[in-house]
Amino acid sequence: MTRTTPADTPLGDSFHVFDTTLRDGAQREGITYSVADKLAVARLLDEVGVGFIEGGWPGAMPKDTEFFAKARELDLQHAALVAFGSTRRAGTTADRDPQVRALLDSAAPVVTLVAKSDRRHIERALRTDVPEACAMVRDTVSFLVGEGRRVFLDAEHFFDGYAHDPDTALAVLTAAVEAGADVAVLCDTNGGQLPLHLADTVGEVIARTGFRVGIHCQDDTGCAVANSIAAVQAGATHVQCTANGYGERAGNADLFSVVGNLVTKLGMPVIPAHAVPELSRVSHALAEIANIAPDTHQAYVGSSAFAHKAGLHASAIKVDPLLYNHIDPTVVGNDMRVLVTEMAGRASLELKGRELGVDLAGQPEVLTAAVRKVKELESHGWSFEAADASLELLLRHELSEVDEPPFTLESYRVIMDHSIDGTVVSEATVKLHVNGARVLATAEGNGPVHALDAALREALLPHLPWLSAVQLTDYKVRILVDHPGTDAVTRVLVESTDGEREWTTVGVHGNIVEASWLALCDALVHKAMRASRPLTAVGGHGGPPTT
Amino acid sequence: MTRTTPADTPLGDSFHVFDTTLRDGAQREGITYSVADKLAVARLLDEVGVGFIEGGWPGAMPKDTEFFAKARELDLQHAALVAFGSTRRAGTTADRDPQVRALLDSAAPVVTLVAKSDRRHIERALRTDVPEACAMVRDTVSFLVGEGRRVFLDAEHFFDGYAHDPDTALAVLTAAVEAGADVAVLCDTNGGQLPLHLADTVGEVIARTGFRVGIHCQDDTGCAVANSIAAVQAGATHVQCTANGYGERAGNADLFSVVGNLVTKLGMPVIPAHAVPELSRVSHALAEIANIAPDTHQAYVGSSAFAHKAGLHASAIKVDPLLYNHIDPTVVGNDMRVLVTEMAGRASLELKGRELGVDLAGQPEVLTAAVRKVKELESHGWSFEAADASLELLLRHELSEVDEPPFTLESYRVIMDHSIDGTVVSEATVKLHVNGARVLATAEGNGPVHALDAALREALLPHLPWLSAVQLTDYKVRILVDHPGTDAVTRVLVESTDGEREWTTVGVHGNIVEASWLALCDALVHKAMRASRPLTAVGGHGGPPTT
Repeated sequence: MTRTTPADTPLGDSFHVFDTTLRDGAQREGITYSVADKLAVARLLDEVGVGFIEGGWPGAMPKDTEFFAKARELDLQHAALVAFGSTRRAGTTADRDPQVRALLDSAAPVVTLVAKSDRRHIERALRTDVPEACAMVRDTVSFLVGEGRRVFLDAEHFFDGYAHDPDTALAVLTAAVEAGADVAVLCDTNGGQLPLHLADTVGEVIARTGFRVGIHCQDDTGCAVANSIAAVQAGATHVQCTANGYGERAGNADLFSVVGNLVTKLGMPVIPAHAVPELSRVSHALAEIANIAPDTHQAYVGSSAFAHKAGLHASAIKVDPLLYNHIDPTVVGNDMRVLVTEMAGRASLELKGRELGVDLAGQPEVLTAAVRKVKELESHGWSFEAADASLELLLRHELSEVDEPPFTLESYRVIMDHSIDGTVVSEATVKLHVNGARVLATAEGNGPVHALDAALREALLPHLPWLSAVQLTDYKVRILVDHPGTDAVTRVLVESTDGEREWTTVGVHGNIVEASWLALCDALVHKAMRASRPLTAVGGHGGPPTT
Repeated sequence: MTRTTPADTPLGDSFHVFDTTLRDGAQREGITYSVADKLAVARLLDEVGVGFIEGGWPGAMPKDTEFFAKARELDLQHAALVAFGSTRRAGTTADRDPQVRALLDSAAPVVTLVAKSDRRHIERALRTDVPEACAMVRDTVSFLVGEGRRVFLDAEHFFDGYAHDPDTALAVLTAAVEAGADVAVLCDTNGGQLPLHLADTVGEVIARTGFRVGIHCQDDTGCAVANSIAAVQAGATHVQCTANGYGERAGNADLFSVVGNLVTKLGMPVIPAHAVPELSRVSHALAEIANIAPDTHQAYVGSSAFAHKAGLHASAIKVDPLLYNHIDPTVVGNDMRVLVTEMAGRASLELKGRELGVDLAGQPEVLTAAVRKVKELESHGWSFEAADASLELLLRHELSEVDEPPFTLESYRVIMDHSIDGTVVSEATVKLHVNGARVLATAEGNGPVHALDAALREALLPHLPWLSAVQLTDYKVRILVDHPGTDAVTRVLVESTDGEREWTTVGVHGNIVEASWLALCDALVHKAMRASRPLTAVGGHGGPPTT
């Protein structure tokens, strides 16, 4: 807890990956971290080897005060813990300002102080003048440094301020550094910068001051990652980011893209080598804690970041994946995925099978049959690109590798009533055969599919106890109106989990309830199959399970 | 349909905003546009004034061939339509290559040809040599130019190719331009570039060749927007993007961020002035068509892009919003305090009412009530962005302008049976009151909603003969899983036509059948209302009906 420099990272203190997910990231609409969440986030950030974790604003936010109290028990391996706060108020001294004292009380060994560096903000929002603003910075930095803290300065609205009045902007930085601040962090607070101009400004500030400079970018022009990288190329040695780019408005610079770029494009080992393959896992885990669906198209770590759909490339990808991927996806713990689409050919299906642990390489006639089956189903509206589990079942069925299904359907009936009093009720009855027995069950639900799922569970649970761990986590519906044929068909995707892995299945039918039924059944059959047949890699090239 | 240059844009042909949502954007996992979707997308892209709309790959994709056939009836105001294709195959002539002939048959006045410009791809994927690859480019461009087409060249994997073997990369460009191609588009196909280096390469290529250069960026480093802007600053005058950055893997450069940056940051009027405030609306409408939840944190157009969480800045924002926003959000049709959708504000609701022929200008208290009602419904998952007819009903209801509904519901019941013989049957019974009579009707359908619609018609037709002209033309379902509250709710959009006009209505409920019922009823009530109250423009500013 007394560490003030990054530990066990190849670049040591000479380059800072500074994470502010817990402070600036929490400004994102919809995020509300509990103290327990914050502790879990800090542990995960430490696992990817960031150098600094800004935990919040003690004093201003009670939850943050509590976080710092509990964070003393965190056994961080790499990161130093940072408290965020503002300089003393105008007209008082730093040691008497309760907000500054709260920074000391947090026991965080490092403090980031935010200060206004745009004259217009100093005059209009702070309602003071430049000499007093500089004095506030100087006094607060001196006081904290005197108390043994390492101090970084966040120069708010720096780029607009520097463009409007460079002398004021530089005076604020100078006040901080002369008083003992280690890094002058140039903040693009409203996120309006573009990379070429930003890089020029960063280079100019370094040339004029000789200070150690950091960068903090917001994503309002869609350029936060690019701006951060450009700043590093211009000489910044401290970069502030948030996990998955969480933050106010359009968000902040995404930690995972910034680190991915620095490590793989610029060859800068800014986190420990063993942490690089953890990036994808930690990104998804942090999304889980924030209760935000992961961005499947996120650079480097998104589940689609290396997913290829184009039939154009599929056969060439087989020859040499690196001709089509900008990096080897496993470097960042991700995986290449081939999407099986209407353009599916033999090469992409074979490759996809390998990914799912199904070896089709030596069986050309099975591969031919599987391609024909997939194309046939796709012409009726099926799509396997997001339903790996259904595709795996199809491939194993072609290989005659699927055991007897765990249950068979005799019939079901779903009834929905909108009563005269306005209430809406759904009720489902299923009749099934399982383990030689005939079972009937009836259940209610919010809607027809929910009722059917409930009846299915009610019927099967006594016979298939493993079912209790399986939960439906997502349900997507797409109506295919002008599908070649006559009537509209409905495509349903069901995502399931058993607490350890997630898998997605698909069902297609003219009737939405039947389509849902098909996807629900596939989900259970896939779980039963995986229980009896654990995934094994094929030919040494199979990756980890991606479903 | 014969336009080959952008019309009515301030920069004319000297700068190209080239959209490839319908071709490269459709490579995104999960997107499958119908032909009707593609036509709707093209209309919306034309509304924001893009110069070129790449519609697809005729010949290779049957749906794209059909799109180009139907696109002849599109009355595009700004954009020229573009077909995408590859050069002739090795060992044949362009005029005999069926894929090249399909480009001509599409009747698109502009063609983008994709060609490999990385020697490793030419040798390993194309399995030919550089002279033959150049000949393929030269022949195909010459042939198409000879047939009166304007041709752009997409130089695939250009940046990696140029770094590896600049002579080959430039030879491919030269073959195209000497044969008559207008623009050499440098493609960062695997998306691995960063802005500073990319800008250097673009500048160097222009200096060495003097060619007109375009840029096409993928987002694998999270820098597609920044790379596109950097390329323009280095001299590129043609920029390829997709709506909301849809595309393979991490996606493409986002049209809305790129245009937002070019217009507001670099002062380049690349789309007509009147189209700039349409960017936010069109972005959301295109997400709706793609059936992808809009990215609320998208730069410029996201509903949170200018949303400030209360805290440090709250009071200062009141003093001067432009101190905290990088641009005035209304410039791009966005709003500073919007939380759920752009509809939330008074000004936009008043404007929208005017567009729908509903005059709210003189009735501030009705407007207040309507804004409150819309916000309340939005907090329960309703969305009126794509459901003008439901919104019009809501506004007229607030104005007490809606007549008695043409019918009222007593109850309905829907039954679905999956029988022992495998057949699936849906049956619906409705009990209604219409014109003072109580009517019962039962009908079957492919699915529950189809059966309900059929029963409704059966009951009403004898009493409301105008109903015979009304048809349901599209039906979209979105499950809102992580809606603030407890259970998932379902949002249904229904598009109807009476042969003269089309209108869209919305319904939201925990039960998909009830949500569909609400949208179906709104569709009929809107038709009845329009029959008794023809649309009249309000205050001379009302546009044509958009439903």
